[in-house]
Amino acid sequence: MSAVPMISESQSLDMTAWTQTRLSRVEQALSQWVGDGAPAGLGDAMRYAVLDGGKRLRPLLVLAAYEAVCSGATASEVHDDAALRAGMDEAALRAGLDEAALRAGLDEAALRAACAVELIHAYSLVHDDMPCMDNDVLRRGKPTVHVQFGEAQALLAGDALQAFAFELLTPDNTLIPAATQATLCRLLARAAGSAGMAGGQAIDLASVGVALTEDQLRQMHRLKTGALLQGSVLMGAACGHAVGAAYQALSDYGAAMGLAFQVVDDILDVVADSATLGKTAGKDAAADKPTYVSLLGLARAQAYAQELLAEAHEALARSGLPDTRALAALADMVVRRSH
Amino acid sequence: MSAVPMISESQSLDMTAWTQTRLSRVEQALSQWVGDGAPAGLGDAMRYAVLDGGKRLRPLLVLAAYEAVCSGATASEVHDDAALRAGMDEAALRAGLDEAALRAGLDEAALRAACAVELIHAYSLVHDDMPCMDNDVLRRGKPTVHVQFGEAQALLAGDALQAFAFELLTPDNTLIPAATQATLCRLLARAAGSAGMAGGQAIDLASVGVALTEDQLRQMHRLKTGALLQGSVLMGAACGHAVGAAYQALSDYGAAMGLAFQVVDDILDVVADSATLGKTAGKDAAADKPTYVSLLGLARAQAYAQELLAEAHEALARSGLPDTRALAALADMVVRRSH
Repeated sequence: MSAVPMISESQSLDMTAWTQTRLSRVEQALSQWVGDGAPAGLGDAMRYAVLDGGKRLRPLLVLAAYEAVCSGATASEVHDDAALRAGMDEAALRAGLDEAALRAGLDEAALRAACAVELIHAYSLVHDDMPCMDNDVLRRGKPTVHVQFGEAQALLAGDALQAFAFELLTPDNTLIPAATQATLCRLLARAAGSAGMAGGQAIDLASVGVALTEDQLRQMHRLKTGALLQGSVLMGAACGHAVGAAYQALSDYGAAMGLAFQVVDDILDVVADSATLGKTAGKDAAADKPTYVSLLGLARAQAYAQELLAEAHEALARSGLPDTRALAALADMVVRRSH
Repeated sequence: MSAVPMISESQSLDMTAWTQTRLSRVEQALSQWVGDGAPAGLGDAMRYAVLDGGKRLRPLLVLAAYEAVCSGATASEVHDDAALRAGMDEAALRAGLDEAALRAGLDEAALRAACAVELIHAYSLVHDDMPCMDNDVLRRGKPTVHVQFGEAQALLAGDALQAFAFELLTPDNTLIPAATQATLCRLLARAAGSAGMAGGQAIDLASVGVALTEDQLRQMHRLKTGALLQGSVLMGAACGHAVGAAYQALSDYGAAMGLAFQVVDDILDVVADSATLGKTAGKDAAADKPTYVSLLGLARAQAYAQELLAEAHEALARSGLPDTRALAALADMVVRRSH
């Protein structure tokens, strides 16, 4: 790969255009893939849960991280091309894949990873909304999945969406190297599982009415929301075969941005109204759940979100990657959003 | 690999000893892995759902299929060693792995695959038993997970078990080739998802009180129970890098045996009592669910199970694999079991 000139962060990126291009690719892929081959009722519930809604923050993080790594100045600095080739399928090796074909495989991997994290996010919302959990009837201004399709179908649709995330990551007859497929499954499984999202939800369940320390609250939020957001960044980085300092910096970016997301969520639950949020406001306080606002007060929670944002920017600055503008803009968006 | 003499099916295998050795390995691995690193309450529910119960049929199928492939007379007939080497991690290639190390990696893959299918099976039981599904309070003679831990924790434990299955299949710093990891994730995701187990459960949901044709009933059962049983066989075969006719024959074996399992389940629901089954008998009839017994009558359902057993044996006979005795014995067990 030839050297790419360093792009200054101050050089402007048309983030609206950047986002629209990526979103349209993701929406098209989700629309094509989700529910395909499923029995009718189940497929309908899966599509209802995933399509036509959501900010798609996680897919955008995957793609932004992937593109940031691909912007890398030299191959040896940010990529590990030897590992990439070693992980390639025999068929690809036999076919004597050139650089362009290799890149096409990685582009496909990034798109699949973007969709897979969104499926995990979507399934978690379906299960979270069920009567035995948050018992929510409204999501993104529409009836929740169990209200629309019944509880049993909602349970199954969530289960099937989780399985489908891993299916998306492991296509056969593909240019995506086997090593990339395995790495993506590993990152997603860890981010979604008992030491990630599901674990965070379990701590959340157990914490109702309990006074948590700030450390305990941070740990809960890191798992519940942060793990999948950070996982999105890591999956994008893995698609570009990032290594060393670049990978570590992206990981730190993901951790700070992921926690910032939840701090802002806690703030919005207090300051926004239900119409703006598209879900019930004031729920945490009503449910006596510990939040950053209840623990630190509103002003200190807001200051903490800004600190985390600065941390995220600092991590990007030391990544050695020449163009991290989309990642920077996404972190800004996470902290400055109104819903 | 050197030629191994053909072993006649009539040569006896001490199936009790065979099973005990494998079971003890699987139980030990599950006990070590499940719930590790999970928050306390969630980890307890995950372990309760998985440990100390169940016939472990799926893990035994994985291991029996793996061993059958490894019994192959010549490498070129049943293995694809070139693909295996191409899929190896760079680190392993650099280390100049020898045949023994390679075998150790595949042995580990088979054990992990055995545990992963059991986790998927266990999670499906946890979710199936919930009030919005079958509303069962008893499983293997113990209170079901939601009775013991509450519905929210049961929902999360099921979700976390599914994620953990994929985590188990994708360890890093391992001798398991990346290609094997990716293939195992692909097979498991397909077997568990909307075109497999979850899809079959959705058809099952929709079929209460509906008159199905035999084709529709077969399709439902193939997905609901058959997909994961067949998937177990295919995952074991993939760990041994089975190719061509051997792989196809094992796939056919898995399909016949998987369907036989469900036909026998339908029969046992009618002829056995709850104490023997360890779950509520007569449930299908009470729920007005279509079964092989309601469709064909008891005698023809029993004859059909025998036909499927013969099909499974026939597939093993044409696999070209010299020692398929454990797979044969497991198929016999599936059809002749009393619970």
